[in-house]
Amino acid sequence: MPTETNEPNKLDKLIALCKQRGIIYPGSEIYGGLANSWHFGPYGAMLKNKIRQAWLKHFVFSRSDMVMLDSAVIMNPKIWEASGHLQNFTDSLVDCKKCQKRFRADHLLEAKSLEPGYSKEKPIDLSQARCPECGGELTDVRQFNLMFKTHIGPVEQEEAEVYLRPEMAGMFIDFKIIQQAARRKLPFGIAQIGKAFRNEITPGNWIFRTREFELMELEYFVHPNEWPKAFTMWLESMKAWLKSLGVKDSNLVFQEIGDGERAHYSKRTVDIEYQYPFGQKELYGLAYRTDYDLTQQAKFSGQDLSYTDPVTGETFVPHVVEPSMGLERTLLVVLLEAYHEEEAPTAKVGETEMRVVLKLPKHLAPVEVAVLPLSKNEQLSELSQTVAELLRAQFIVEYDATQSIGRRYRRQDEIGTPYCVTIDFDTAQDNAVTVRDRDTMKQERVSIPELMAYLTAKF
Amino acid sequence: MPTETNEPNKLDKLIALCKQRGIIYPGSEIYGGLANSWHFGPYGAMLKNKIRQAWLKHFVFSRSDMVMLDSAVIMNPKIWEASGHLQNFTDSLVDCKKCQKRFRADHLLEAKSLEPGYSKEKPIDLSQARCPECGGELTDVRQFNLMFKTHIGPVEQEEAEVYLRPEMAGMFIDFKIIQQAARRKLPFGIAQIGKAFRNEITPGNWIFRTREFELMELEYFVHPNEWPKAFTMWLESMKAWLKSLGVKDSNLVFQEIGDGERAHYSKRTVDIEYQYPFGQKELYGLAYRTDYDLTQQAKFSGQDLSYTDPVTGETFVPHVVEPSMGLERTLLVVLLEAYHEEEAPTAKVGETEMRVVLKLPKHLAPVEVAVLPLSKNEQLSELSQTVAELLRAQFIVEYDATQSIGRRYRRQDEIGTPYCVTIDFDTAQDNAVTVRDRDTMKQERVSIPELMAYLTAKF
Repeated sequence: MPTETNEPNKLDKLIALCKQRGIIYPGSEIYGGLANSWHFGPYGAMLKNKIRQAWLKHFVFSRSDMVMLDSAVIMNPKIWEASGHLQNFTDSLVDCKKCQKRFRADHLLEAKSLEPGYSKEKPIDLSQARCPECGGELTDVRQFNLMFKTHIGPVEQEEAEVYLRPEMAGMFIDFKIIQQAARRKLPFGIAQIGKAFRNEITPGNWIFRTREFELMELEYFVHPNEWPKAFTMWLESMKAWLKSLGVKDSNLVFQEIGDGERAHYSKRTVDIEYQYPFGQKELYGLAYRTDYDLTQQAKFSGQDLSYTDPVTGETFVPHVVEPSMGLERTLLVVLLEAYHEEEAPTAKVGETEMRVVLKLPKHLAPVEVAVLPLSKNEQLSELSQTVAELLRAQFIVEYDATQSIGRRYRRQDEIGTPYCVTIDFDTAQDNAVTVRDRDTMKQERVSIPELMAYLTAKF
Repeated sequence: MPTETNEPNKLDKLIALCKQRGIIYPGSEIYGGLANSWHFGPYGAMLKNKIRQAWLKHFVFSRSDMVMLDSAVIMNPKIWEASGHLQNFTDSLVDCKKCQKRFRADHLLEAKSLEPGYSKEKPIDLSQARCPECGGELTDVRQFNLMFKTHIGPVEQEEAEVYLRPEMAGMFIDFKIIQQAARRKLPFGIAQIGKAFRNEITPGNWIFRTREFELMELEYFVHPNEWPKAFTMWLESMKAWLKSLGVKDSNLVFQEIGDGERAHYSKRTVDIEYQYPFGQKELYGLAYRTDYDLTQQAKFSGQDLSYTDPVTGETFVPHVVEPSMGLERTLLVVLLEAYHEEEAPTAKVGETEMRVVLKLPKHLAPVEVAVLPLSKNEQLSELSQTVAELLRAQFIVEYDATQSIGRRYRRQDEIGTPYCVTIDFDTAQDNAVTVRDRDTMKQERVSIPELMAYLTAKF
């Protein structure tokens, strides 16, 4: 009974599994939570760390034209004036005059999410709309800025008002500093992974839309004529990345955003959408942003952010292609693709039972090898701990000695452990262990001296 | 002319080097900066990423008793009520009535930094003090909370008031969820790396004290009788970690904090202090926090956060040993230890010049191998790019083809690159390259087919 990604109750099953296994569960849970915030427990935190490192390898370390940046969450507020976030990064809200419930105007129209610049040219007409909950009359549309505001210094005075970054932005601010210090020629890009914050009115769909999240973004700086080439290159690179995560092509939709639908500064945007159980929605974005960001930041800062080609001598403001990816949405898609239910044989010959298994790409698995002594016998425990120590030099290892071996296999399947190493009563005699493959459930006898090489070859 | 860590102008030299080379420079610089915030450019961001991963390996992955967590920056505010931060995480401030300057009361007393719980029992007596700037009269002492406050949701109303975490805290909140989901027995620990925010009145000393910073913290849960053993173990582990970073013992001071000086809930605290160029100050902390945190969080949440030993059946609230480390202070110390000035031979026989070199531990170096073609000759470039691609499969590689080879060596020395691979006019003939060692400056001829194995053995 294979499960499909868009099976409606698959998400509920995955959420329950993640909570039970400590992968993802509500934030501040002992206090009743906090507004769709989520914590990533042992296996979730490990998965996130592995996705970050895999992203850096794919988009930065394996390339000759990329560098990293780690800029601040709290930056000079003029940056958000220049970027347009202060004026335009808003949700349009309406209240029901009868039941007092609050709604996003665009949701009432079933329109797309608002991004800075989006929809400014198309005022929302709700004159015909009524409250979807009680049918009551609605207020006029009001604008609500999505940036979290706070204050620096000991007094809440206006000049010390600052914002938590709603996106990275540091790559624009520091473009020239980095280009010169790292002595880079165009085209080159600056990549960053970090927290961003958006005071969303309607977060939801588990970790799909949260107020606090991590972005994996890069800004690629090119000569104005070179953007189509760069755009195609990054689209291919994002496809290869999604493939490396185990995402099936059939679940992806590459949505070319039409004229009038794009942000005003963008001349081409492709939304990479995914068939979530709750519908087809955005996963990643790829946008050609022209020279909008550098021009705006140059204008507001009074600094020269242009570039002079060392060969041609031409001076210009670089244009930018921006691939933008969310860490939590990546994790969501990785988990949805990995989640499988299937019939598996039990200890009794001929009998089967349903097993849940996360068929994660091996390089992302939070536990790489589980070491499981068959019984709590003292000699077996000692041997098992020696094997676990040996493997820990190279792998992420979990040692688990309690419950029946069948239940422990199921548990490792549910957290996506690719290999289980079982130490049994024969081990002391033949100096060998049983290695079980997560996906095939096949077991192989491997001698301990060969175990490290055997497993290394598998990853 | 070797430089000493506590040489007064060493810090200025390091700051200048880091700015020039894009390692660390002021945040929001094109807008004139923002209150002692810093950005970490290509090499700084890479260093931070490597320190994080090395920390996880040392404190989590290489151990059988540690798991990870990734909890939220914005959590339920009751957590900070329970922890005491809302009431006690304050700085005592005074203003000068004459020149209007603001001072931290404890700085006027040259006392230690305030931590939650610290100093509450010892009111600050400034009756004799005058303004250190102008000699004017001072106001009474006022309390200022160091947590950044913001609001969730569309209206700034008090019930939606939340705080940016001043420390991780998630390990206490999620203790029971994690202990059960990951099926752990005591003793075990939960580790986390993440951003924390403190609205410091007097940030300063470069990246030593900033308002936004990254913590690498772990909470180790033990039976109440077991804390002394755990305390000693973590003290040794922190010493081993500092050794792995290349920190000299002679620059460290292990300060046993006496009765009456510790936070009220702590029964033992060791501050690990470092001889910075600006004085001996805190680097890391190790504290036995008793059952204070779990007891407080249980009390305020109404949840049971106790633990039952599966063997003895004893039920108790676990006690906690907390090693706490800052990422930026770690980076600061790594850079201070690595910074060297020394006489080095120039191209002219018998002549020397001063070179600046970051003798970083090899596993932390932001660039692992630099590939440098001796000239811009087309054949050399092609060969060099092939070598760079080859090495990039396994190493962090920088390709640099401009400027004289001497200047390129100096530049790689200044960012701490352990090995430079030079491709010259003989390379096409003998299929070999010259590998230069950063520290000894010795050069070896290595054949290209053996290059990968040669470099792998060096790391």
